[in-house]
Amino acid sequence: MIYDLIIIGAGPAGISAAIYAARQKLNLLVISRDMGGQLGKKSVDIENYPGFSKISGQDLIARLLAQLEENKVETVFDSVISIKKEENKFLIATETGANYESLAVIATSGAEPKKLGVEGEKEFAGKGVSYCALCDGPIFRGKTVAVAGGGNSGFETALFLSNYVKEIFILESEPVPRADKENQDLVMKSGKVKIITNVKVKKIAGDNFVKEIIYETLKGQEKLEVSGVFVEIGYAPETAFLNGLIDLTERGEIIFNLENLETKTAGLFSAGDANKGKYKQIIISCGEGAKAALSAYEYIQKAKK
Amino acid sequence: MIYDLIIIGAGPAGISAAIYAARQKLNLLVISRDMGGQLGKKSVDIENYPGFSKISGQDLIARLLAQLEENKVETVFDSVISIKKEENKFLIATETGANYESLAVIATSGAEPKKLGVEGEKEFAGKGVSYCALCDGPIFRGKTVAVAGGGNSGFETALFLSNYVKEIFILESEPVPRADKENQDLVMKSGKVKIITNVKVKKIAGDNFVKEIIYETLKGQEKLEVSGVFVEIGYAPETAFLNGLIDLTERGEIIFNLENLETKTAGLFSAGDANKGKYKQIIISCGEGAKAALSAYEYIQKAKK
Repeated sequence: MIYDLIIIGAGPAGISAAIYAARQKLNLLVISRDMGGQLGKKSVDIENYPGFSKISGQDLIARLLAQLEENKVETVFDSVISIKKEENKFLIATETGANYESLAVIATSGAEPKKLGVEGEKEFAGKGVSYCALCDGPIFRGKTVAVAGGGNSGFETALFLSNYVKEIFILESEPVPRADKENQDLVMKSGKVKIITNVKVKKIAGDNFVKEIIYETLKGQEKLEVSGVFVEIGYAPETAFLNGLIDLTERGEIIFNLENLETKTAGLFSAGDANKGKYKQIIISCGEGAKAALSAYEYIQKAKK
Repeated sequence: MIYDLIIIGAGPAGISAAIYAARQKLNLLVISRDMGGQLGKKSVDIENYPGFSKISGQDLIARLLAQLEENKVETVFDSVISIKKEENKFLIATETGANYESLAVIATSGAEPKKLGVEGEKEFAGKGVSYCALCDGPIFRGKTVAVAGGGNSGFETALFLSNYVKEIFILESEPVPRADKENQDLVMKSGKVKIITNVKVKKIAGDNFVKEIIYETLKGQEKLEVSGVFVEIGYAPETAFLNGLIDLTERGEIIFNLENLETKTAGLFSAGDANKGKYKQIIISCGEGAKAALSAYEYIQKAKK
């Protein structure tokens, strides 16, 4: 059987796309190794999704899955390892050895924030270690925190956090911060930020919650007492399986047509955190998912002629 | 006082923007003549907003307003009649004679579906007369309906409705449908659609619900028995007050930078149904609102330097 549409991934973008595609009566399959994507890893409540003043990641996932079920969406738990386009259809192979065919594909495989890979990082994830200042910043009101990463996103994070916290240390591995001069000026103006360069984070420590960050300097190890560590060393979009069908930015993000979310391959659409775009937000991913599904629907109607 | 940001409109795009802007600690004002925008006019439950399998427009508005309150957003009920940009600030004048100043503006003033302006249209709005097939189509399962408008959106609506309904009549005022050949072929292929051209809709009639549509032909009045009338004669974006600060498409939609939602005027952002874009959906508007607020935040930080 050839599906009309296969959606890869079931985070906010994938689920939103599936809801829309199901309502368009497309013959539809969702392939994902988990349900909820990054939402499942959220340690603090979500307060910026319009419609919910406060909701946990797990509760939002449960509501989205109920909606998938309501719309009778077929899902399989599996990982896509390759996609090919032959003539007018896509051939999809998964880790478990299954093969699927479809007229169109929406890739919503997401992106993971890059990890420092140091002791304590995993242990304190959600207990002071955060990969999303926009989400978690407000809970550090009046505290001292560290930002690991001195590029633009590290400086922008520090600037945002300066609205809430008492003091911020930016730790950067290069001798000079990589952020734009403009961002550096803004951060300095806040009066709350100290920049420590040419250091390597070694360890994050604490008890129930983060208490300190330990880093290496030329003179040996030093430490700072902090309540939070924001890791801002970039995102790693999951796009390897799309090899050859898409163009990527230098940061590895998918380049797509902003009007209809189609990639350079006709019939292959893309939505969510793997896409080129500065803001990785649940509501933005959901909006993109809906738009990709409506665009895919039009493509499929024409492909069926 | 100069606000950091003024958001004009409080539909889904405006409220989403306000939630994000408030969390960025911007000094913020929302000006709108109502709360909820088009949501307040929805006659059937919303089933395609991710997070809610089914919710009424009024209930979703109530939840969004609670979230605005939670974020302590200042709002005034008023209509903006003009905006000017002088040096680096925006001067905003309202219908009640109030004047406001801000560093940045997000316009989310929305668009209204154009009305036929015939007898019975208003009376049966939400009782068989619909301006959103994507929202309301599924409730007409197995019924006969009319689509007023033979342009691309009328044909696309008919094609979508063909998934649900028994029979569709497209009524077009021109002698030949204005839709693309491609859309016309697709519609004919569905086998459910009859096209009636060179007619003028005169009246929509019924009892509790729509029962017939009456139209004028060269030979006099004729009528069709239908359970629903979908009006697809275009959107009228509300952009008059932005006169001079924005560029418009030929359909009167705001042209904006798709990456950051800025218009041709620096510091003036735009989100939601007034924007250029094929798909007018709540979730897409919310995503745009969030993105516009995050872009405006960056603009404001630099403007304050």
